[in-house]
Amino acid sequence: MRYRVGPFSCAGTSEPSSACETIPGVTEGTGRMEAFSDGIFAIAATLLVLEFAVGSGRDLGHELLHIWPSYLAYATSFITIGIIWINHHHTVSLLARADRTMLFVNNLLLLTIAFLPFPTKLVADYLRKDGEEAATLAYTATFVIMAVMHQVWWQYARHNRRLIADVVPDSALRAVDRAYAPGVPMYAVCFVVAFFSPLAAVFLTFAIAAFYLPSAALFDR
Amino acid sequence: MRYRVGPFSCAGTSEPSSACETIPGVTEGTGRMEAFSDGIFAIAATLLVLEFAVGSGRDLGHELLHIWPSYLAYATSFITIGIIWINHHHTVSLLARADRTMLFVNNLLLLTIAFLPFPTKLVADYLRKDGEEAATLAYTATFVIMAVMHQVWWQYARHNRRLIADVVPDSALRAVDRAYAPGVPMYAVCFVVAFFSPLAAVFLTFAIAAFYLPSAALFDR
Amino acid sequence: MRYRVGPFSCAGTSEPSSACETIPGVTEGTGRMEAFSDGIFAIAATLLVLEFAVGSGRDLGHELLHIWPSYLAYATSFITIGIIWINHHHTVSLLARADRTMLFVNNLLLLTIAFLPFPTKLVADYLRKDGEEAATLAYTATFVIMAVMHQVWWQYARHNRRLIADVVPDSALRAVDRAYAPGVPMYAVCFVVAFFSPLAAVFLTFAIAAFYLPSAALFDR
Amino acid sequence: MRYRVGPFSCAGTSEPSSACETIPGVTEGTGRMEAFSDGIFAIAATLLVLEFAVGSGRDLGHELLHIWPSYLAYATSFITIGIIWINHHHTVSLLARADRTMLFVNNLLLLTIAFLPFPTKLVADYLRKDGEEAATLAYTATFVIMAVMHQVWWQYARHNRRLIADVVPDSALRAVDRAYAPGVPMYAVCFVVAFFSPLAAVFLTFAIAAFYLPSAALFDR
Repeated sequence: MRYRVGPFSCAGTSEPSSACETIPGVTEGTGRMEAFSDGIFAIAATLLVLEFAVGSGRDLGHELLHIWPSYLAYATSFITIGIIWINHHHTVSLLARADRTMLFVNNLLLLTIAFLPFPTKLVADYLRKDGEEAATLAYTATFVIMAVMHQVWWQYARHNRRLIADVVPDSALRAVDRAYAPGVPMYAVCFVVAFFSPLAAVFLTFAIAAFYLPSAALFDR
Repeated sequence: MRYRVGPFSCAGTSEPSSACETIPGVTEGTGRMEAFSDGIFAIAATLLVLEFAVGSGRDLGHELLHIWPSYLAYATSFITIGIIWINHHHTVSLLARADRTMLFVNNLLLLTIAFLPFPTKLVADYLRKDGEEAATLAYTATFVIMAVMHQVWWQYARHNRRLIADVVPDSALRAVDRAYAPGVPMYAVCFVVAFFSPLAAVFLTFAIAAFYLPSAALFDR
Repeated sequence: MRYRVGPFSCAGTSEPSSACETIPGVTEGTGRMEAFSDGIFAIAATLLVLEFAVGSGRDLGHELLHIWPSYLAYATSFITIGIIWINHHHTVSLLARADRTMLFVNNLLLLTIAFLPFPTKLVADYLRKDGEEAATLAYTATFVIMAVMHQVWWQYARHNRRLIADVVPDSALRAVDRAYAPGVPMYAVCFVVAFFSPLAAVFLTFAIAAFYLPSAALFDR
Repeated sequence: MRYRVGPFSCAGTSEPSSACETIPGVTEGTGRMEAFSDGIFAIAATLLVLEFAVGSGRDLGHELLHIWPSYLAYATSFITIGIIWINHHHTVSLLARADRTMLFVNNLLLLTIAFLPFPTKLVADYLRKDGEEAATLAYTATFVIMAVMHQVWWQYARHNRRLIADVVPDSALRAVDRAYAPGVPMYAVCFVVAFFSPLAAVFLTFAIAAFYLPSAALFDR
């Protein structure tokens, strides 16, 4: 990691240097926000593997097939985190600055992301067993909250171009709007489906990660 | 992560390069200190999720509500780490250099941060059960030590502007003084409250993270 | 971590800066891809240590010798991840850009890497015990999938120089071809050997990590 | 994390840029080596906290005092990793390049660092109990191997200035020599002491981390 992001980051040089990468009052805060965010995303995704466990006293080969909900939950959460990271990076790159409120909202978003390994493990442990409804409701509710927080994050930054860099055209903002808009309703549907069929709710969440999110990723816009 | 922070970081170039970002004798050491610090903060925050566990043999939905102390402890510790990271980054950006003592003090501060997942888990496991007093005392004591270490860290750097960059105005130092001053007494109060009401002590620690710390964050100063 | 990789990463500057490191339409996306990848590789390698466990109720000295499959599996997986990371870095440095498909394939490759601690633990727990065949098949199958994904990753980027930077000579591409070509067949052999001798399959996987991979590492080409 | 370390890292620019930070054939490889290393150090240090556990069915307050070997082992390992990281960074900054052998040796060094949480947990669990001798021998042996690997790492780079940058004066190399020389004998003494008194061996390892290593850290040389 490398950041010299504060107002005095190029401190010590007696004259402006072309290599001094901090522009006081402009990028103030986004570097720190990115730094905290990047670490959290990568670690949360990698900790997902700790959900895997096999029971003892059974045939291991059979057991490894039997835990298919673990694979499903792992893939769903991992791919989702990967794509949310990409989107987060893209939107941060549109910002000219961050402020205290932004920072706090970002912290709450990360808190949700870092929480994901727990409901993922619940789905892995309880799908097709007693408790699958509660497990799946917790899982899909986490995605709903994550989507809400991401939307709040974006709307706060975008409202009246509050934190947006001057050079960013309005079309770039509308592209983000379009990409983020379906998030909350889609995960809300997953949540509702979980009341009727936990398995269907998890497959739907997986399908969003595998098919919808990549197509909507804020990648080459 | 990429740092070329030593005195010879631009080694191999035959002449001074404008892109050579290390200024020997000036930023010496702060890059390394930041690098070690950033990793620790992000990982400690993300490991907090490993505290979550549900008992077996009960209704899962009921169990997920029953573990509310886990959510409270998780949110408290996560938000606190996030804000301490921001403050740490800000104060490091005020430094022109680090020395051996600074480095050792920083190491002790990080040791405290990285320890936090353990008392967080104690609160999650014991709040409202036998042992809640000991768990909460351990939790609040960790925050007291963390605040003391952060204060020692800052006072060492600030004393006679020992490590402060020349371009940093005194007003910036006083802003940090004001932000850091309430830390130790506030957490000491939490610690004392834990003797009387463990639950109140945890809520108070949460309130500091959610309400006080964001307002005092060394963010846009 | 620090990336300003989007099209607007140098936003806020009113004129082109020589220190502005993003070249819109050129490196678009590879920075983000590297960032996500680097974190995953390092964390997956370090989480491997969590596989180690000693049973209770026995002589500890004896037990520490008895768990030799844990050491073997740990070393094999750690060294392999280290070398794959180097190769991944090298090939990313050949790219001028990434696109949406590339990103998704990269995500799937990382999903496989981050999964490795689980089959590593299976080998550690089951080698020389009931279930060793299933454990070793899971382990070697993970390496086969990893090699396939890495090959798909590379072929997608390389086909008609789709994502390759103009300055990269064809000889550099052929060097990667030669280095990657043996991956899938070698691990397929390990997988087949696991049906006959799980122990031999693990030793073979270790030998590839210790002897073949370093010699083929895309290091000083 | 941010690295563009390959020979083509500034690919896509049509002319040499002053901001292009890679000097082909010079820093080739050290960036990748640092990146892998930094992640491993930070994560290994933070994973140490997972060793902490309290038994159930006892008074928690008493139990938290009873696990003092956990605190001792945690502090010892954490401080040691912090200082080794600083030294590693410093010596990497002296290199002009890395080669394949260097890379492999570095990988083995990291494998030892990432292994440390396991013997640390052994000491935490077994000190002052049956098995303390085996636990402490495993712990001190890990430090011996780590010191040997670090010495091999350095001697390989330093021999005939094989990988050293031209601008690095011989005095800087001799400073590293002096700092690294006592490592292996000191930890060998700890290992031998463990046969007679496991407790004394752990305290000695702690004393090295707290008193010797900071004074010898390759910090402001």
